[in-house]
Amino acid sequence: MEQNQAPLQVGMLLYPGLTLLDLIGPQTVWSWHAKIHLVWKTRNMIVSDTGVGIQPTTTFSDCPNDLDVLFVPGGFGTVAAMKDREVLGFLADRAAQAKYVTSVCSGSLILGAAGLLQGYKATSHWAFRDILPMFGAEPVEARVVVDRNRITGGGVTASIDFGLVLLAKLRGDDVAKVTQLAMEYDPEPPFHAGSPKTAGPALTKQVMSYLESADLETRQAAAEISRGMSK
Amino acid sequence: MEQNQAPLQVGMLLYPGLTLLDLIGPQTVWSWHAKIHLVWKTRNMIVSDTGVGIQPTTTFSDCPNDLDVLFVPGGFGTVAAMKDREVLGFLADRAAQAKYVTSVCSGSLILGAAGLLQGYKATSHWAFRDILPMFGAEPVEARVVVDRNRITGGGVTASIDFGLVLLAKLRGDDVAKVTQLAMEYDPEPPFHAGSPKTAGPALTKQVMSYLESADLETRQAAAEISRGMSK
Repeated sequence: MEQNQAPLQVGMLLYPGLTLLDLIGPQTVWSWHAKIHLVWKTRNMIVSDTGVGIQPTTTFSDCPNDLDVLFVPGGFGTVAAMKDREVLGFLADRAAQAKYVTSVCSGSLILGAAGLLQGYKATSHWAFRDILPMFGAEPVEARVVVDRNRITGGGVTASIDFGLVLLAKLRGDDVAKVTQLAMEYDPEPPFHAGSPKTAGPALTKQVMSYLESADLETRQAAAEISRGMSK
Repeated sequence: MEQNQAPLQVGMLLYPGLTLLDLIGPQTVWSWHAKIHLVWKTRNMIVSDTGVGIQPTTTFSDCPNDLDVLFVPGGFGTVAAMKDREVLGFLADRAAQAKYVTSVCSGSLILGAAGLLQGYKATSHWAFRDILPMFGAEPVEARVVVDRNRITGGGVTASIDFGLVLLAKLRGDDVAKVTQLAMEYDPEPPFHAGSPKTAGPALTKQVMSYLESADLETRQAAAEISRGMSK
Protein backbone atom coordinates (compact mmCIF):
# COMPACT_ATOMS: atom_id res chain seq x y z
CA MET A 1 0.00 0.00 0.00
CA GLU A 2 3.02 2.29 0.18
CA GLN A 3 3.10 2.94 -3.56
CA ASN A 4 6.89 3.20 -3.19
CA GLN A 5 6.58 6.21 -0.90
CA ALA A 6 8.70 6.52 2.24
CA PRO A 7 6.56 5.82 5.31
CA LEU A 8 5.05 8.85 7.02
CA GLN A 9 6.83 9.85 10.22
CA VAL A 10 4.17 10.14 12.92
CA GLY A 11 4.76 11.20 16.52
CA MET A 12 1.89 10.33 18.88
CA LEU A 13 2.09 11.68 22.42
CA LEU A 14 1.45 9.22 25.24
CA TYR A 15 0.78 10.38 28.81
CA PRO A 16 -0.62 8.81 31.97
CA GLY A 17 -4.42 8.81 31.84
CA LEU A 18 -4.77 9.18 28.07
CA THR A 19 -7.90 7.73 26.43
CA LEU A 20 -6.50 4.84 24.44
CA LEU A 21 -9.24 4.80 21.78
CA ASP A 22 -8.31 8.41 20.87
CA LEU A 23 -4.88 7.08 19.97
CA ILE A 24 -5.58 3.60 18.60
CA GLY A 25 -8.16 4.91 16.10
CA PRO A 26 -5.70 6.94 13.99
CA GLN A 27 -2.77 4.64 14.86
CA THR A 28 -4.70 1.81 13.17
CA VAL A 29 -5.74 3.98 10.22
CA TRP A 30 -2.18 5.17 9.58
CA SER A 31 -0.27 2.01 10.50
CA TRP A 32 0.11 0.62 6.96
CA HIS A 33 1.56 3.90 5.75
CA ALA A 34 3.61 5.19 8.64
CA LYS A 35 6.45 4.71 11.02
CA ILE A 36 4.63 5.48 14.26
CA HIS A 37 6.51 6.82 17.26
CA LEU A 38 4.67 6.52 20.60
CA VAL A 39 6.40 9.24 22.60
CA TRP A 40 6.76 9.91 26.30
CA LYS A 41 9.44 11.18 28.71
CA THR A 42 10.72 7.67 29.27
CA ARG A 43 10.11 4.27 27.69
CA ASN A 44 8.46 3.00 30.86
CA MET A 45 4.93 1.70 30.46
CA ILE A 46 2.11 4.26 30.51
CA VAL A 47 -1.29 3.45 32.03
CA SER A 48 -4.40 4.71 30.20
CA ASP A 49 -7.40 6.33 31.91
CA THR A 50 -9.13 2.95 32.00
CA GLY A 51 -6.13 1.00 33.25
CA VAL A 52 -4.57 -0.39 30.06
CA GLY A 53 -0.78 -0.48 30.00
CA ILE A 54 0.86 0.68 26.77
CA GLN A 55 4.52 0.88 25.85
CA PRO A 56 6.17 4.06 24.49
CA THR A 57 8.48 3.35 21.56
CA THR A 58 10.65 6.43 22.01
CA THR A 59 11.31 9.44 24.25
CA PHE A 60 10.93 13.20 23.80
CA SER A 61 14.64 13.51 23.13
CA ASP A 62 14.86 10.56 20.71
CA CYS A 63 11.71 11.33 18.71
CA PRO A 64 12.52 12.45 15.14
CA ASN A 65 12.51 16.22 14.64
CA ASP A 66 10.90 16.22 11.24
CA LEU A 67 7.44 14.72 11.67
CA ASP A 68 4.74 14.50 9.03
CA VAL A 69 2.19 14.34 11.84
CA LEU A 70 2.33 15.37 15.48
CA PHE A 71 -0.68 13.96 17.34
CA VAL A 72 -2.09 14.47 20.85
CA PRO A 73 -4.88 12.28 22.31
CA GLY A 74 -7.30 13.33 25.06
CA GLY A 75 -8.24 11.67 28.32
CA PHE A 76 -8.59 12.21 32.04
CA GLY A 77 -4.85 12.85 32.22
CA THR A 78 -5.26 15.98 30.10
CA VAL A 79 -4.99 18.44 32.99
CA ALA A 80 -1.63 17.13 34.18
CA ALA A 81 -0.31 17.19 30.61
CA MET A 82 -1.59 20.78 30.11
CA LYS A 83 0.49 21.88 33.11
CA ASP A 84 3.61 19.88 32.30
CA ARG A 85 6.36 22.14 30.93
CA GLU A 86 8.32 19.21 29.54
CA VAL A 87 5.27 18.02 27.56
CA LEU A 88 4.46 21.55 26.32
CA GLY A 89 8.08 22.15 25.37
CA PHE A 90 8.23 18.93 23.36
CA LEU A 91 4.99 19.76 21.52
CA ALA A 92 6.02 23.35 20.73
CA ASP A 93 9.37 22.15 19.40
CA ARG A 94 8.06 19.37 17.13
CA ALA A 95 5.02 21.41 16.03
CA ALA A 96 7.31 24.08 14.60
CA GLN A 97 8.65 21.51 12.15
CA ALA A 98 5.71 19.15 11.68
CA LYS A 99 3.66 19.07 8.48
CA TYR A 100 0.42 18.60 10.49
CA VAL A 101 -0.26 19.41 14.15
CA THR A 102 -3.24 17.39 15.33
CA SER A 103 -5.37 16.11 18.19
CA VAL A 104 -8.48 14.17 19.12
CA CYS A 105 -10.87 14.84 22.03
CA SER A 106 -9.45 16.94 24.89
CA GLY A 107 -6.01 16.61 23.28
CA SER A 108 -6.77 19.98 21.65
CA LEU A 109 -6.60 21.57 25.12
CA ILE A 110 -3.02 20.31 25.45
CA LEU A 111 -2.19 21.79 22.04
CA GLY A 112 -3.89 24.99 23.25
CA ALA A 113 -1.86 25.05 26.46
CA ALA A 114 1.29 24.71 24.35
CA GLY A 115 0.23 27.87 22.48
CA LEU A 116 -0.34 25.95 19.26
CA LEU A 117 -3.96 26.86 18.52
CA GLN A 118 -3.83 30.65 18.80
CA GLY A 119 -5.79 32.05 15.89
CA TYR A 120 -6.89 28.61 14.67
CA LYS A 121 -10.32 27.03 14.36
CA ALA A 122 -10.45 23.80 16.36
CA THR A 123 -12.67 21.26 18.05
CA SER A 124 -12.58 18.97 21.08
CA HIS A 125 -14.87 16.59 22.99
CA TRP A 126 -18.31 18.31 23.05
CA ALA A 127 -18.13 18.78 26.83
CA PHE A 128 -14.81 20.65 26.66
CA ARG A 129 -15.04 22.49 23.34
CA ASP A 130 -16.03 25.83 24.90
CA ILE A 131 -12.71 25.95 26.78
CA LEU A 132 -10.78 26.44 23.51
CA PRO A 133 -11.17 30.26 23.40
CA MET A 134 -9.08 30.51 26.59
CA PHE A 135 -6.17 29.49 24.34
CA GLY A 136 -7.09 31.86 21.53
CA ALA A 137 -8.74 29.15 19.42
CA GLU A 138 -12.12 29.44 17.75
CA PRO A 139 -14.28 26.44 18.66
CA VAL A 140 -16.18 24.75 15.83
CA GLU A 141 -18.95 22.21 16.35
CA ALA A 142 -17.75 19.60 13.89
CA ARG A 143 -16.40 16.05 13.93
CA VAL A 144 -13.11 17.04 12.28
CA VAL A 145 -11.87 20.62 11.89
CA VAL A 146 -9.15 21.51 9.39
CA ASP A 147 -7.56 24.96 9.61
CA ARG A 148 -4.36 25.23 7.59
CA ASN A 149 -2.06 22.55 9.11
CA ARG A 150 -4.02 22.18 12.35
CA ILE A 151 -6.45 19.26 12.29
CA THR A 152 -8.50 18.50 15.39
CA GLY A 153 -11.11 15.81 16.00
CA GLY A 154 -14.07 15.55 18.39
CA GLY A 155 -14.46 13.13 21.30
CA VAL A 156 -12.99 9.61 21.47
CA THR A 157 -14.62 7.82 18.50
CA ALA A 158 -14.04 10.84 16.23
CA SER A 159 -10.49 9.49 16.17
CA ILE A 160 -11.36 7.13 13.29
CA ASP A 161 -12.99 9.83 11.13
CA PHE A 162 -10.10 12.16 11.94
CA GLY A 163 -7.51 9.51 11.00
CA LEU A 164 -9.12 8.87 7.62
CA VAL A 165 -9.50 12.59 6.80
CA LEU A 166 -5.81 13.14 7.45
CA LEU A 167 -4.75 9.98 5.59
CA ALA A 168 -6.69 11.24 2.54
CA LYS A 169 -4.75 14.53 2.72
CA LEU A 170 -1.41 12.75 2.98
CA ARG A 171 -1.91 9.83 0.60
CA GLY A 172 -5.00 10.61 -1.45
CA ASP A 173 -8.64 9.56 -1.34
CA ASP A 174 -8.12 6.09 -2.81
CA VAL A 175 -5.63 5.05 -0.14
CA ALA A 176 -8.00 6.32 2.56
CA LYS A 177 -10.93 4.43 0.98
CA VAL A 178 -8.95 1.17 0.83
CA THR A 179 -8.04 1.63 4.49
CA GLN A 180 -11.66 2.35 5.42
CA LEU A 181 -12.69 -0.89 3.67
CA ALA A 182 -9.89 -2.90 5.30
CA MET A 183 -11.10 -1.64 8.69
CA GLU A 184 -14.73 -2.32 7.68
CA TYR A 185 -15.65 1.20 8.74
CA ASP A 186 -19.33 1.11 7.91
CA PRO A 187 -20.64 2.20 11.33
CA GLU A 188 -24.05 1.21 12.69
CA PRO A 189 -24.43 2.91 16.07
CA PRO A 190 -27.17 1.03 17.94
CA PHE A 191 -28.72 4.28 19.22
CA HIS A 192 -29.16 7.81 17.97
CA ALA A 193 -27.32 9.21 20.99
CA GLY A 194 -23.82 10.18 19.90
CA SER A 195 -24.12 13.94 20.37
CA PRO A 196 -25.92 16.21 22.87
CA LYS A 197 -28.35 17.19 20.09
CA THR A 198 -29.40 13.64 19.30
CA ALA A 199 -29.18 12.30 22.86
CA GLY A 200 -31.25 15.14 24.33
CA PRO A 201 -30.89 17.12 27.58
CA ALA A 202 -31.53 14.31 30.12
CA LEU A 203 -28.76 12.00 28.88
CA THR A 204 -26.44 14.98 28.32
CA LYS A 205 -26.96 16.08 31.92
CA GLN A 206 -26.09 12.55 33.06
CA VAL A 207 -22.78 12.55 31.14
CA MET A 208 -21.98 16.05 32.44
CA SER A 209 -22.52 14.85 36.00
CA TYR A 210 -19.96 12.04 35.49
CA LEU A 211 -17.54 14.55 34.01
CA GLU A 212 -18.18 17.20 36.68
CA SER A 213 -14.90 17.01 38.59
CA ALA A 214 -12.79 16.56 35.43
CA ASP A 215 -14.64 19.48 33.88
CA LEU A 216 -14.03 21.80 36.84
CA GLU A 217 -10.38 20.82 37.10
CA THR A 218 -9.86 21.35 33.36
CA ARG A 219 -11.47 24.81 33.38
CA GLN A 220 -9.40 25.89 36.37
CA ALA A 221 -6.19 24.71 34.73
CA ALA A 222 -7.12 26.38 31.43
CA ALA A 223 -7.85 29.69 33.18
CA GLU A 224 -4.54 29.56 35.02
CA ILE A 225 -2.54 28.74 31.87
CA SER A 226 -4.43 31.37 29.90
CA ARG A 227 -3.49 34.05 32.48
CA GLY A 228 0.14 32.98 32.20
CA MET A 229 0.00 33.27 28.40
CA SER A 230 -1.36 36.81 28.34
CA LYS A 231 1.35 38.14 30.63
CA MET B 1 -22.76 4.87 36.34
CA GLU B 2 -22.75 1.55 38.17
CA GLN B 3 -26.19 2.08 39.67
CA ASN B 4 -24.95 0.11 42.67
CA GLN B 5 -24.39 -2.99 40.57
CA ALA B 6 -21.25 -5.07 40.97
CA PRO B 7 -18.88 -4.44 38.03
CA LEU B 8 -19.15 -6.87 35.14
CA GLN B 9 -16.35 -9.42 35.02
CA VAL B 10 -14.90 -9.30 31.50
CA GLY B 11 -12.10 -11.51 30.18
CA MET B 12 -10.50 -10.20 26.97
CA LEU B 13 -7.98 -12.46 25.25
CA LEU B 14 -4.68 -10.92 24.21
CA TYR B 15 -2.31 -12.64 21.80
CA PRO B 16 0.69 -11.61 19.71
CA GLY B 17 -0.48 -9.95 16.51
CA LEU B 18 -3.96 -9.00 17.71
CA THR B 19 -5.60 -5.94 16.13
CA LEU B 20 -5.68 -3.50 19.01
CA LEU B 21 -8.70 -1.52 17.80
CA ASP B 22 -10.79 -4.73 17.93
CA LEU B 23 -10.04 -4.82 21.66
CA ILE B 24 -9.89 -1.16 22.65
CA GLY B 25 -13.32 -0.44 21.09
CA PRO B 26 -15.33 -2.61 23.52
CA GLN B 27 -12.79 -2.16 26.33
CA THR B 28 -13.54 1.58 26.22
CA VAL B 29 -17.31 1.03 25.96
CA TRP B 30 -17.36 -1.34 28.92
CA SER B 31 -14.69 0.27 31.09
CA TRP B 32 -17.02 2.31 33.33
CA HIS B 33 -19.08 -0.78 34.12
CA ALA B 34 -16.59 -3.59 34.27
CA LYS B 35 -13.55 -5.11 35.84
CA ILE B 36 -11.60 -5.91 32.69
CA HIS B 37 -9.08 -8.74 32.64
CA LEU B 38 -6.60 -8.66 29.74
CA VAL B 39 -5.59 -12.30 29.57
CA TRP B 40 -2.60 -14.10 28.13
CA LYS B 41 -0.35 -17.04 29.05
CA THR B 42 2.01 -14.76 30.93
CA ARG B 43 1.95 -11.16 32.07
CA ASN B 44 4.76 -10.27 29.68
CA MET B 45 4.02 -7.51 27.19
CA ILE B 46 2.18 -8.49 24.00
CA VAL B 47 2.89 -6.78 20.67
CA SER B 48 -0.10 -5.98 18.42
CA ASP B 49 -0.17 -6.54 14.65
CA THR B 50 0.89 -2.94 14.10
CA GLY B 51 3.63 -2.93 16.71
CA VAL B 52 1.95 -1.50 19.80
CA GLY B 53 2.99 -3.07 23.11
CA ILE B 54 0.17 -3.81 25.54
CA GLN B 55 0.32 -5.29 29.03
CA PRO B 56 -1.77 -8.32 30.10
CA THR B 57 -3.36 -7.86 33.53
CA THR B 58 -3.70 -11.56 34.29
CA THR B 59 -2.90 -15.07 33.04
CA PHE B 60 -5.01 -17.98 31.81
CA SER B 61 -4.70 -19.65 35.19
CA ASP B 62 -5.45 -16.54 37.26
CA CYS B 63 -8.37 -15.24 35.17
CA PRO B 64 -11.68 -15.52 37.06
CA ASN B 65 -13.74 -18.59 36.17
CA ASP B 66 -17.11 -16.90 36.23
CA LEU B 67 -17.05 -14.27 33.52
CA ASP B 68 -19.96 -12.13 32.38
CA VAL B 69 -18.19 -11.70 29.04
CA LEU B 70 -15.48 -13.71 27.33
CA PHE B 71 -14.08 -11.74 24.37
CA VAL B 72 -11.70 -12.59 21.52
CA PRO B 73 -10.26 -9.93 19.16
CA GLY B 74 -9.04 -10.60 15.61
CA GLY B 75 -5.79 -9.71 13.90
CA PHE B 76 -2.92 -11.09 11.87
CA GLY B 77 -2.00 -13.32 14.82
CA THR B 78 -5.30 -15.19 14.46
CA VAL B 79 -3.81 -18.24 12.75
CA ALA B 80 -1.27 -18.93 15.50
CA ALA B 81 -4.01 -18.52 18.13
CA MET B 82 -6.33 -20.89 16.20
CA LYS B 83 -3.66 -23.59 16.38
CA ASP B 84 -2.64 -23.01 19.99
CA ARG B 85 -4.05 -25.73 22.30
CA GLU B 86 -3.41 -23.66 25.41
CA VAL B 87 -5.44 -20.75 23.97
CA LEU B 88 -8.25 -23.03 22.77
CA GLY B 89 -8.34 -24.87 26.11
CA PHE B 90 -8.62 -21.59 28.04
CA LEU B 91 -11.44 -20.36 25.78
CA ALA B 92 -13.41 -23.64 25.97
CA ASP B 93 -13.09 -23.68 29.75
CA ARG B 94 -14.20 -20.09 30.40
CA ALA B 95 -16.86 -20.18 27.66
CA ALA B 96 -18.61 -23.05 29.45
CA GLN B 97 -19.24 -20.73 32.39
CA ALA B 98 -19.44 -17.28 30.75
CA LYS B 99 -22.70 -15.41 30.37
CA TYR B 100 -21.67 -14.19 26.87
CA VAL B 101 -19.06 -15.66 24.50
CA THR B 102 -18.00 -12.98 22.04
CA SER B 103 -15.59 -11.80 19.36
CA VAL B 104 -14.82 -9.07 16.86
CA CYS B 105 -13.28 -9.45 13.40
CA SER B 106 -11.35 -12.70 12.80
CA GLY B 107 -11.63 -13.43 16.52
CA SER B 108 -14.69 -15.51 15.59
CA LEU B 109 -12.37 -17.95 13.80
CA ILE B 110 -10.53 -18.52 17.09
CA LEU B 111 -13.88 -19.14 18.82
CA GLY B 112 -14.69 -21.48 15.93
CA ALA B 113 -11.39 -23.34 16.28
CA ALA B 114 -12.18 -23.80 19.99
CA GLY B 115 -15.44 -25.49 18.93
CA LEU B 116 -17.54 -22.68 20.38
CA LEU B 117 -19.57 -21.67 17.32
CA GLN B 118 -20.95 -25.06 16.21
CA GLY B 119 -24.60 -24.55 15.38
CA TYR B 120 -24.47 -20.80 15.92
CA LYS B 121 -24.98 -17.87 13.58
CA ALA B 122 -21.91 -15.64 13.57
CA THR B 123 -19.97 -13.00 11.67
CA SER B 124 -16.34 -11.96 11.13
CA HIS B 125 -14.33 -9.50 9.05
CA TRP B 126 -15.96 -9.50 5.59
CA ALA B 127 -12.89 -11.07 3.98
CA PHE B 128 -12.92 -14.05 6.36
CA ARG B 129 -16.62 -14.58 7.04
CA ASP B 130 -17.00 -17.44 4.57
CA ILE B 131 -14.52 -19.52 6.60
CA LEU B 132 -16.99 -19.82 9.49
CA PRO B 133 -18.85 -22.88 8.08
CA MET B 134 -15.64 -24.92 8.46
CA PHE B 135 -16.33 -24.66 12.19
CA GLY B 136 -20.04 -25.47 11.91
CA ALA B 137 -21.12 -21.83 12.19
CA GLU B 138 -23.63 -20.14 9.90
CA PRO B 139 -22.14 -16.90 8.52
CA VAL B 140 -24.37 -13.83 8.58
CA GLU B 141 -23.59 -10.61 6.72
CA ALA B 142 -24.23 -8.17 9.55
CA ARG B 143 -22.30 -5.73 11.72
CA VAL B 144 -23.21 -7.53 14.96
CA VAL B 145 -24.75 -11.01 15.14
CA VAL B 146 -26.52 -12.22 18.29
CA ASP B 147 -27.40 -15.92 18.56
CA ARG B 148 -28.33 -16.94 22.08
CA ASN B 149 -25.25 -16.10 24.18
CA ARG B 150 -22.85 -15.88 21.25
CA ILE B 151 -22.32 -12.30 20.03
CA THR B 152 -19.90 -11.66 17.18
CA GLY B 153 -18.94 -8.42 15.46
CA GLY B 154 -17.61 -7.62 11.97
CA GLY B 155 -14.17 -6.24 11.12
CA VAL B 156 -12.10 -3.92 13.33
CA THR B 157 -14.31 -0.81 13.71
CA ALA B 158 -17.41 -2.99 14.28
CA SER B 159 -15.90 -3.34 17.75
CA ILE B 160 -17.59 -0.13 18.91
CA ASP B 161 -21.07 -1.09 17.64
CA PHE B 162 -20.58 -4.57 19.11
CA GLY B 163 -19.52 -3.17 22.49
CA LEU B 164 -22.58 -0.92 22.72
CA VAL B 165 -24.99 -3.70 21.67
CA LEU B 166 -23.65 -5.97 24.40
CA LEU B 167 -23.60 -3.18 27.01
CA ALA B 168 -27.28 -2.53 26.28
CA LYS B 169 -28.03 -6.22 26.91
CA LEU B 170 -26.11 -6.24 30.18
CA ARG B 171 -27.03 -2.82 31.62
CA GLY B 172 -29.99 -1.56 29.60
CA ASP B 173 -30.46 0.88 26.73
CA ASP B 174 -30.07 4.05 28.81
CA VAL B 175 -26.64 3.08 30.12
CA ALA B 176 -25.53 2.23 26.57
CA LYS B 177 -26.87 5.56 25.28
CA VAL B 178 -25.04 7.53 27.99
CA THR B 179 -21.85 5.69 27.08
CA GLN B 180 -22.36 6.38 23.37
CA LEU B 181 -22.75 10.09 24.17
CA ALA B 182 -19.70 10.13 26.47
CA MET B 183 -17.69 8.59 23.62
CA GLU B 184 -19.24 11.04 21.13
CA TYR B 185 -20.13 8.12 18.87
CA ASP B 186 -21.81 10.03 16.09
CA PRO B 187 -19.71 8.69 13.22
CA GLU B 188 -19.05 10.59 10.00
CA PRO B 189 -17.00 8.33 7.73
CA PRO B 190 -15.35 10.57 5.15
CA PHE B 191 -16.09 8.08 2.35
CA HIS B 192 -18.80 5.63 1.47
CA ALA B 193 -16.32 2.76 1.35
CA GLY B 194 -16.69 0.72 4.55
CA SER B 195 -18.01 -2.48 2.99
CA PRO B 196 -17.33 -4.36 -0.27
CA LYS B 197 -20.81 -3.34 -1.47
CA THR B 198 -20.25 0.38 -0.99
CA ALA B 199 -16.56 0.37 -1.94
CA GLY B 200 -17.09 -1.57 -5.15
CA PRO B 201 -15.07 -4.36 -6.79
CA ALA B 202 -11.86 -2.43 -7.60
CA LEU B 203 -11.15 -1.29 -4.03
CA THR B 204 -12.27 -4.67 -2.66
CA LYS B 205 -9.82 -6.44 -4.95
CA GLN B 206 -7.07 -4.14 -3.68
CA VAL B 207 -7.78 -5.00 -0.03
CA MET B 208 -7.97 -8.71 -0.90
CA SER B 209 -4.55 -8.50 -2.53
CA TYR B 210 -3.05 -7.05 0.68
CA LEU B 211 -4.72 -9.81 2.69
CA GLU B 212 -3.75 -12.56 0.25
CA SER B 213 -1.13 -14.37 2.30
CA ALA B 214 -3.06 -13.98 5.58
CA ASP B 215 -6.16 -15.23 3.80
CA LEU B 216 -4.46 -18.34 2.39
CA GLU B 217 -2.80 -19.15 5.69
CA THR B 218 -6.09 -18.74 7.57
CA ARG B 219 -8.01 -21.00 5.17
CA GLN B 220 -5.34 -23.70 5.37
CA ALA B 221 -5.36 -23.60 9.17
CA ALA B 222 -9.16 -23.65 9.29
CA ALA B 223 -9.30 -26.66 6.95
CA GLU B 224 -6.77 -28.54 9.05
CA ILE B 225 -8.55 -27.77 12.34
CA SER B 226 -11.90 -28.61 10.78
CA ARG B 227 -10.61 -32.05 9.73
CA GLY B 228 -9.37 -32.66 13.28
CA MET B 229 -12.80 -31.71 14.68
CA SER B 230 -14.77 -34.12 12.51
CA LYS B 231 -12.59 -37.09 13.47
